[in-house]
Amino acid sequence: MKLTGTTLVLTGIIVILAVALIGTLIFVSNQPKPDRGIEPIVQIEEMEPDSSKWGVNFPNQYSTLQKTESNNTRTTFGGSEKFSKLEQDPRLLDLFAGYGFSLEYNEDRGHLNSLTDVRAIKRVNEKTPGTCYSCKSSDNPRLWTEMGMAEFDKTLFKDLGKDINEPIGCANCHEANTMRLIVTNPALEEALKAQGKDWRTFTRQEMRTVVCANCHVEYYFAGDGKYLTYPWADGTDIDSIAKYYAELGFNDWEHPQSGAAMIKMQHPEYELFTADSTHYKAGVACADCHMPYTRDGSAKFSTHDVHSPLLNAETACGACHTDVGYVTSRVATIQQQVRGTMDSSEDAIIAAIKAIEAAAATPEVNADLLAEARDMHREAQLRWDFIAAENSMGFHNPEEALRILAAATDLARQAQLKAVQAAGTPTIIQTSSQ
Amino acid sequence: MKLTGTTLVLTGIIVILAVALIGTLIFVSNQPKPDRGIEPIVQIEEMEPDSSKWGVNFPNQYSTLQKTESNNTRTTFGGSEKFSKLEQDPRLLDLFAGYGFSLEYNEDRGHLNSLTDVRAIKRVNEKTPGTCYSCKSSDNPRLWTEMGMAEFDKTLFKDLGKDINEPIGCANCHEANTMRLIVTNPALEEALKAQGKDWRTFTRQEMRTVVCANCHVEYYFAGDGKYLTYPWADGTDIDSIAKYYAELGFNDWEHPQSGAAMIKMQHPEYELFTADSTHYKAGVACADCHMPYTRDGSAKFSTHDVHSPLLNAETACGACHTDVGYVTSRVATIQQQVRGTMDSSEDAIIAAIKAIEAAAATPEVNADLLAEARDMHREAQLRWDFIAAENSMGFHNPEEALRILAAATDLARQAQLKAVQAAGTPTIIQTSSQ
Repeated sequence: MKLTGTTLVLTGIIVILAVALIGTLIFVSNQPKPDRGIEPIVQIEEMEPDSSKWGVNFPNQYSTLQKTESNNTRTTFGGSEKFSKLEQDPRLLDLFAGYGFSLEYNEDRGHLNSLTDVRAIKRVNEKTPGTCYSCKSSDNPRLWTEMGMAEFDKTLFKDLGKDINEPIGCANCHEANTMRLIVTNPALEEALKAQGKDWRTFTRQEMRTVVCANCHVEYYFAGDGKYLTYPWADGTDIDSIAKYYAELGFNDWEHPQSGAAMIKMQHPEYELFTADSTHYKAGVACADCHMPYTRDGSAKFSTHDVHSPLLNAETACGACHTDVGYVTSRVATIQQQVRGTMDSSEDAIIAAIKAIEAAAATPEVNADLLAEARDMHREAQLRWDFIAAENSMGFHNPEEALRILAAATDLARQAQLKAVQAAGTPTIIQTSSQ
Repeated sequence: MKLTGTTLVLTGIIVILAVALIGTLIFVSNQPKPDRGIEPIVQIEEMEPDSSKWGVNFPNQYSTLQKTESNNTRTTFGGSEKFSKLEQDPRLLDLFAGYGFSLEYNEDRGHLNSLTDVRAIKRVNEKTPGTCYSCKSSDNPRLWTEMGMAEFDKTLFKDLGKDINEPIGCANCHEANTMRLIVTNPALEEALKAQGKDWRTFTRQEMRTVVCANCHVEYYFAGDGKYLTYPWADGTDIDSIAKYYAELGFNDWEHPQSGAAMIKMQHPEYELFTADSTHYKAGVACADCHMPYTRDGSAKFSTHDVHSPLLNAETACGACHTDVGYVTSRVATIQQQVRGTMDSSEDAIIAAIKAIEAAAATPEVNADLLAEARDMHREAQLRWDFIAAENSMGFHNPEEALRILAAATDLARQAQLKAVQAAGTPTIIQTSSQ
């Protein structure tokens, strides 16, 4: 074969290109691997409800999450042992008379018990809406996406249950594979949007508080569809929430003794903590205390055994505070101050309930004054309950908690007085009663 | 002259002794001077009232003390500008009706104005006892020693004045020459002793709080001799103090509208701060914030320009806190929460006063219930005043302040209700009043 000039040139080009290609491949394969980012062992499906599948990639986080099933210890005022709040403080039977919370009201256990416990609670009945599953399962992000939250909420609890198999898990706060923290509860997304906020612009440290608001908030069921709604349009502090409910004319139930249109507060940890608390203003996130960084050899991870920091104060408080003994004694003092002030609020509200009930039974009762007394009962109790239902015995924001309880007691005593005015006689209350 | 053997031996001994003596003197005079302790320029007389004489030895301390005369700046809720508390909050006119504090009630100015200001106050009259000089002069330690406190107190203010020439100064807290911090007020010595405490066993850091209790405390004038007494026998917290006064049957004045036997609280900074406050429990002394360490070249000294730490927060708070902006914003938030809760207490107490006055004017009033209402007025107001008269708008102990105000409001509202029960009709209060 005779080599032409053209053939020679072409051969040369091919040889040069081949060498360049091989060189590039060798160069690329010799580059060091990136030392950040996730190198998954398995791919996780979007919104995967089964936390054990995420656990293959994140064994430390998963194994600590598993501890929330049985690692349920009681603290002085809370913790995660399932004790009856009604037995602990029988005044709650009067305060929640006529409402489910007077039937059964237990301290919550750890995250992995969410599904078992919600299905066992006596408050659930044939008419209970699907909304009550909102904070109980890692199946929710998938269901909310597939069904839409409106459909989820209006489906009956007993019917929705067949699609719900997993307790709270990874998918409630994390995006699969990127593992970034995300808002999954549409009600939180909407509540933030109503305030002009977009969580996608938040820092990671902010998200370490905001994802907890997927559940640890005050909420209500709006309309016949029992649409999950956070009462945040005017702000997240108690006075803004009270105003929101008043303007909406919303009530959870009517108190059978006082006849007041009542609000049951849920667990407004996010709202109380973020109301200018010392720790929040210092830049501390929920996860800093409840999921403190822990070491596994050279690896640092955020423990997912979420519980009271009092149970692992050395790790939880010790990350910032040098004298943990001092810190925990401060917590004890503050919680006792809040508990004592809360006791006075409860006594005052119960006195108001009795006075209003007696006034209403008076033939010549002044209806306008009676209505004012009932409104004061409502306003007093929702304030007290904002602190009573909140899971920290005031410690998430001590000054705000005490300020709110002082206002609750004041309102309750004024309700009692207003009832006397409505009845036209103080004989409706016993002279010894306070 | 012939030297005998004896003479020779004696001469030898004398020479040896002389050399040893000279050697010792040279050795001693060459020793370095001690680098601690006080090398006074002048000797200060025991209990010297004139601070300028101490100032020769301690120019930094003295020159900063001098600033307290004119360096009187107002803060949001206090400071040391002489503004009228009655003008700022006219409700005090009702609360202190019938008592000197409704005539004139000013914010205190700095230490060096103590004598000028006490002599100018309208509350002082011909019958005012010498006891009112107790916290106003550095002549007191000398006078207490010479006259005894009983004689000091029973001498009339107008007569005692001729022996009193100096405002608060060095001798109120320091022992001359050793400069150690000492308790000079016999009433404090006795109050500590009643609790089984001896200040001579206290650490210096403890004394940097305790010397402030020479004056910054609640006190009363016992018996006809107006003997200065701290109501601390049962403890220094508000509930112990209230119990002490109740058991003693003591009152400062009778409220002309309510007829209640009242207690005026003075300035219980020591009691509120030491009631398990965050800062106190952390080992912080009054002087750490109010007299922070300052540098003059290489010398460190405690500034004696005592005032609100908010006016020099970088120095006062910055010694421990890295983010002073965060700290001062926390102070602002807390003081606003306390002020708001205090407002509610004042409204409630005034409502109680009006109700009790109206009940007392009712012909068929139940005397026992009226007495109960008056007692509740007293108990409510002394609690409110414990926080209102205290110079920190609650910041010295935020949780305790809010706890106490909540209790004050509760008691005041119960007093109002009790008055209605005493009168037998709620018509004694206007339906619109709260």
